Amino acid sequence: MSLPIGIGFLGAGTVGSALIRRLIYESDAIAAKTGLDLEVRGIAVKHLEKDRGIEIPAGLLTDRPAEVVDNPEVQIVVEVIGGLDPAGDLVMRALRSGKAVVTANKELMASRGRDLLSAAEKAGVSLLFEAAVGGGIPIIRPLSESLAGERITSVVGIVNGTTNYILTRMAEEGSAYEEVLAEAQELGYAEADPTADVGGGDAASKAAILASLAFGIWVDGAKVVREGIEDLRTEDFEFARRLGYIPKLLAVAEDSAEGIGVRVHPTLVPLDHPLASVRGATNAVFVSGPSIGELLFTGPGAGGEPTATAILGDLIAAARERLAGTEVDARIRFVAGHLRRPEDISTQWLLRITVIDRPGVLARIAGVFGTHLVSIKSVWQDGRGDEATLLLVTHESPEGDLQKAASDLSKLDVVTEVASAMRVYSQEI
Amino acid sequence: MSLPIGIGFLGAGTVGSALIRRLIYESDAIAAKTGLDLEVRGIAVKHLEKDRGIEIPAGLLTDRPAEVVDNPEVQIVVEVIGGLDPAGDLVMRALRSGKAVVTANKELMASRGRDLLSAAEKAGVSLLFEAAVGGGIPIIRPLSESLAGERITSVVGIVNGTTNYILTRMAEEGSAYEEVLAEAQELGYAEADPTADVGGGDAASKAAILASLAFGIWVDGAKVVREGIEDLRTEDFEFARRLGYIPKLLAVAEDSAEGIGVRVHPTLVPLDHPLASVRGATNAVFVSGPSIGELLFTGPGAGGEPTATAILGDLIAAARERLAGTEVDARIRFVAGHLRRPEDISTQWLLRITVIDRPGVLARIAGVFGTHLVSIKSVWQDGRGDEATLLLVTHESPEGDLQKAASDLSKLDVVTEVASAMRVYSQEI
Repeated sequence: MSLPIGIGFLGAGTVGSALIRRLIYESDAIAAKTGLDLEVRGIAVKHLEKDRGIEIPAGLLTDRPAEVVDNPEVQIVVEVIGGLDPAGDLVMRALRSGKAVVTANKELMASRGRDLLSAAEKAGVSLLFEAAVGGGIPIIRPLSESLAGERITSVVGIVNGTTNYILTRMAEEGSAYEEVLAEAQELGYAEADPTADVGGGDAASKAAILASLAFGIWVDGAKVVREGIEDLRTEDFEFARRLGYIPKLLAVAEDSAEGIGVRVHPTLVPLDHPLASVRGATNAVFVSGPSIGELLFTGPGAGGEPTATAILGDLIAAARERLAGTEVDARIRFVAGHLRRPEDISTQWLLRITVIDRPGVLARIAGVFGTHLVSIKSVWQDGRGDEATLLLVTHESPEGDLQKAASDLSKLDVVTEVASAMRVYSQEI
Repeated sequence: MSLPIGIGFLGAGTVGSALIRRLIYESDAIAAKTGLDLEVRGIAVKHLEKDRGIEIPAGLLTDRPAEVVDNPEVQIVVEVIGGLDPAGDLVMRALRSGKAVVTANKELMASRGRDLLSAAEKAGVSLLFEAAVGGGIPIIRPLSESLAGERITSVVGIVNGTTNYILTRMAEEGSAYEEVLAEAQELGYAEADPTADVGGGDAASKAAILASLAFGIWVDGAKVVREGIEDLRTEDFEFARRLGYIPKLLAVAEDSAEGIGVRVHPTLVPLDHPLASVRGATNAVFVSGPSIGELLFTGPGAGGEPTATAILGDLIAAARERLAGTEVDARIRFVAGHLRRPEDISTQWLLRITVIDRPGVLARIAGVFGTHLVSIKSVWQDGRGDEATLLLVTHESPEGDLQKAASDLSKLDVVTEVASAMRVYSQEI
């Protein structure tokens, strides 16, 4: 058994409590497997009296986070407060005072990750964040270590469990978005304020982190183009299924000859693609490169216990480094690079257009596409008369051209509405 | 850019050549991404004149492996000879002389891994073997580091590409084993002597390594129970499909209340299970635990380039440790434990029995099962008269009981042959 290592917690919510319980009540099993004695020496929380479902030994709790960060008996700080403030300054302070930090905070890493990693490097300590993406799925370590020698070309995945749960139920039950969201909130699968999830912000933070590690350029989470799932209608699912697709919220990061593109948006995935069958709160991430081809990582994308396992893995790594007396630099160098403008990124699109069905309609619509150099791959018509629906799938076209075409289409007198425009998963996605 | 690190190769076959090419001709890209200067300083091969498809700078090649192992300019040795001898003694010698070793050798790790890891620990150097299991799929590092804090209960997967290629073609084309094997050999997907693959030995080595890392007890590859795919017939695939299954060669390692069981055998996987759709040379590994639930890792299980990527990841990690001046101990402690006897392990079984169809046959057959306490879940009959086939699926039964029942069945005068007995994937598998 090694010397004890002092652990301090910032936050003790679902994930924090799950991990504290294991560190306190399963310390023998952890020691047997790893040879480490991980000792919880301080837990900073907002509300001292709150019931956390575990018995926390007296004297560990404090409502002053500085007491944990500045405690000389604490060598590794676990940050599970979430959000930017005060988590960011506390993590920075811990790193600068020579403590290793393990965090599950995707928003913080996507926003201030570069500065925090640089502060960690200067202080010679580790900042580990496996739990920030994919919950219990090991993806950060494989990307930054196992695949350190691969020129990764794309990372594509389902990285938000809440939206995937909602989309799965909409697809399987034909339920409306508002109805499923309300139920998800009741069940605790969605937050009272669901914006970060359903608006794509959470997935955008994760996409930024994945892109940064995969491509070695730092991607600011705020710069990731995002579209949420709020506008998806029951009809979108019906028409998609008829054409062999299912809508999924995908995070996409690709490195191509035209540059690096990172974005989050609903995407029509072919029903026979492995991502189509990823249900509920499960996450799945594809990593591609010229040598490895395609790797797929699948598992629980959220939840207290899986996320606690990811943090514990990082905690064990940080403790081993601490005992070895050095921090092994496993960070990717962030070289210069730029993000592609969203309007330049090409994908296939499925447009659903309600039209007044009269002779010459299709010619006029095709004319608008032609003007904007968007080439049509296939067309279906559903219904007749004033309530006809046209489904058009385009060849790959830059988003800018597609948006202009859609805007001009909506001005045609034969077009009632461009009801939806969704990207279709294709080679380039 | 850091100080150069000297790399020595033992072997330069498909995997070795792919990696040497990258280290020599893509050193700028590796340096840009990792900050490391990895310099190949010696390559030991058997045949100096053999064409390796890459131009190797003069002076690097030698046919005396000791020159690489003893070269003071070499800090990390990459072992890609394969097999136990002379690889084992060379790796041991390299470790004892203070060199880190990266190997892709599953046979060696499954046989002498414990001694080699212990020698590495004594010498304070790393012995890394990500490439030994799953080709390009990161699985060793996730198991031993990311999941170090999880009490893993099972690891189940398809870990041999050659047999999965053969089984996929048999299932999809209805071709005979011998025919597909001969074609696979022509295409280079199977070795001239395919025994290690088709007999389950290669998968058994990998299962032993996975079990050792997952459960923290050292499992000797030679002790892993194995059954190959040589006896599978076209009819097995037909009958399996009719009942909703596909035969796959699974490696199974489980830790249950009854102990740890590790085995490799053909298994009937339900057609809607993710492992059923793993085709060709792809590998897929499920890892389960009480906190993480189920994780799935999928990717290319073999091939020069994917395997070279896995070795390169280890090489980069070893080089970083070397530069940090210490080896960070990320090894699992191997505690005492014992393997379950195969005859005690319970699974469901599908038996295919050719019988002479006359009144009372089923009662007599059921009687034999009853005598051995094997309980029947369902029965189908196919054909009539002297050429009837009975398909029986049992409830979970220990292999010992099942074998006794099968033996007694074959002695009945109404039974022509117990044509096959295959395990069925179920909860416990």
